[in-house]
Amino acid sequence: MKRHIAGLTVLLLTIVSSLCLAQTDQPPIKEDFKPNSTNQPGREFPQVNSEGRVRASISAPEATKVQLDISAVKYDLVKDENGVWTGESGPQDEGFHYYQLWIDGAAVPDPGSLYFFGAMRWGSGIEIPATDQDFYALKNVPHGQMRQIFFPSESTNTSRRAFVYTPPDYDKDLTKRYPVLYLQHGWGENEYGWPEQGKTMFIMDNLIAEGKAKPFIIVMTYGMTNEIKFGGLRNFDITPFQTVLVDELIPYIDATFRTLTDQPNRAMAGLSMGGFETKLITLKNLDTFSHIGLFSGGSISADDVNNTPGFKEKVKLVFVSFGSRELENRRGGWGGDPKENAAALKEAGVNSHFYVSPNTAHEWQSWRRSLHEFAPLVFRD
Amino acid sequence: MKRHIAGLTVLLLTIVSSLCLAQTDQPPIKEDFKPNSTNQPGREFPQVNSEGRVRASISAPEATKVQLDISAVKYDLVKDENGVWTGESGPQDEGFHYYQLWIDGAAVPDPGSLYFFGAMRWGSGIEIPATDQDFYALKNVPHGQMRQIFFPSESTNTSRRAFVYTPPDYDKDLTKRYPVLYLQHGWGENEYGWPEQGKTMFIMDNLIAEGKAKPFIIVMTYGMTNEIKFGGLRNFDITPFQTVLVDELIPYIDATFRTLTDQPNRAMAGLSMGGFETKLITLKNLDTFSHIGLFSGGSISADDVNNTPGFKEKVKLVFVSFGSRELENRRGGWGGDPKENAAALKEAGVNSHFYVSPNTAHEWQSWRRSLHEFAPLVFRD
Repeated sequence: MKRHIAGLTVLLLTIVSSLCLAQTDQPPIKEDFKPNSTNQPGREFPQVNSEGRVRASISAPEATKVQLDISAVKYDLVKDENGVWTGESGPQDEGFHYYQLWIDGAAVPDPGSLYFFGAMRWGSGIEIPATDQDFYALKNVPHGQMRQIFFPSESTNTSRRAFVYTPPDYDKDLTKRYPVLYLQHGWGENEYGWPEQGKTMFIMDNLIAEGKAKPFIIVMTYGMTNEIKFGGLRNFDITPFQTVLVDELIPYIDATFRTLTDQPNRAMAGLSMGGFETKLITLKNLDTFSHIGLFSGGSISADDVNNTPGFKEKVKLVFVSFGSRELENRRGGWGGDPKENAAALKEAGVNSHFYVSPNTAHEWQSWRRSLHEFAPLVFRD
Repeated sequence: MKRHIAGLTVLLLTIVSSLCLAQTDQPPIKEDFKPNSTNQPGREFPQVNSEGRVRASISAPEATKVQLDISAVKYDLVKDENGVWTGESGPQDEGFHYYQLWIDGAAVPDPGSLYFFGAMRWGSGIEIPATDQDFYALKNVPHGQMRQIFFPSESTNTSRRAFVYTPPDYDKDLTKRYPVLYLQHGWGENEYGWPEQGKTMFIMDNLIAEGKAKPFIIVMTYGMTNEIKFGGLRNFDITPFQTVLVDELIPYIDATFRTLTDQPNRAMAGLSMGGFETKLITLKNLDTFSHIGLFSGGSISADDVNNTPGFKEKVKLVFVSFGSRELENRRGGWGGDPKENAAALKEAGVNSHFYVSPNTAHEWQSWRRSLHEFAPLVFRD
């Protein structure tokens, strides 16, 4: 018994000392925090340091517990003598992340940040500066326009919002007509996703200025993704959105903008559930769409090609992409390995491209990069 | 002494009973609350009832005090057995109001509402249904577009954002050119004010559909109002913004859009500090602007006219407006009574209009109505 207790004591001491060692060994947090690019005007917090840690800070003098909640982990903030709570997250992947604060059990947006729609809510977002952030930076180049429009929808008995990106030269040469890409957000998001956190306008303005992409129009509307019931993706009915997109939005766009209205000049792409929608709609409407992009949203297999009459003649591009962490964490599903599917399509003579975004997960940095890779490939003769 | 105590008791009883009576006399809050039009998708709260009361509700199980803060009054919320706090404000004026929640001393946006920029922050807004809300409703009429653009600004060494409203027929007849109104927000706001809480697009679409306003372009950019120091309005220097507006934005708009570029076809208007800016800029640039609108932002006096060479020949419209509560609460200032100033201008032969928004204060309902009154008067031959 005595030996047992002694052994237990040694074990406990070992644990305690290793905990202390662990704490001593942990390198200190780098004190090079800077106010974030997505902060509200004039706000000092949130901040991000060179390790990709987020430092949040909020005045809550009477609170007993305040936490920063990012990438599914909650980090405790610590109160100072003025009632201001401050604390840091662990290092985050580069790119954009949604986050929130918890104040005594209430989940609220951080009053220091700008707000974005994702995870089914308007809430805080943060931008971990990325090594390649230059491609979506606001630069002194000719700019296109991001237009908010409302189009009539008989099937849903309302006017529906869409955003339309027109390229820089659209208002210069009034005789020129342009190809159109229909670009979809994911589940829990809406039509603001691509224009805001997706940085669509800056990505396209920069690519066009560098001569790397043909000027084309991009149309973004709500994909009717968020009314889905629990476990309902399997039973998801694409028909209502397909009606809005193909029968209502496309005719409106072709009547309102100077578009090229033939099948070779119309593309559809989407991220996550928007990729799922893209696959469902394009394969059923190959007289309407010629270019297909799936960003973190499944892939197209040789079986899909074989089961879709006219695929090889009508489809001019299949682009499939993922964040590298999605492929690392993959546990089956998706109807076959997407990289192998892409290779099989190429083998079968389809213009098939596969792209992996390095060191990113199922998040916006993967999708910004996907658009940046996709845009130069689309509408090429 | 006994009489004294008896008297005190009677007095106390009187006070207590009158307090009870007061409580009994108070009519119960009307239980016809409905989720608000500015709620986030699918959110049940905040709600508004037919008295104009706002009911807020938030889950905060560990909080000890939660308040709704609207129109400079804080209302206590009450916690239920599930940790959800709920409570109501007093009746509010019809129209749009900024508000926030306090959770144990932290001022945060309500996670149930959409967010708007005002009072120097992106935060919650609520819409008390107005008797005249039809004029800014989304209707099944031809819609214009609200375009986000970035224009180069040498003086501030960056690309600056603006929103440009183009009328419904702008993309139909590509030979037609349009007059332009430059429209400014107030202090603590930014270029999102008029497109979002101002409802500019719906107001114009509806007026044009009814044939009540000529189609024209509206340009909204940040008025550089918010860097002002405490007590600094008196020392406010209009030069930096005047340079951006007159020397940079106007030439860009005239080069990019199909505008009528002569003085008779260019107007400027603004609300509150944006009205102050409008007066400063237009009176110095009467070869650039012909139509002037000041919404809750001062007025133009006969002295102003006399001290501005060419005013009578060059100015085609002076429109001045206020919310009725602003005039009720007025305690001098503004360089003379605005209604008397308007009358004096009319007397002097100026096309002068004065408008009072009924039962509204220094808030957006006054300014929506002001735009709705101003737009039919501007650019008339």
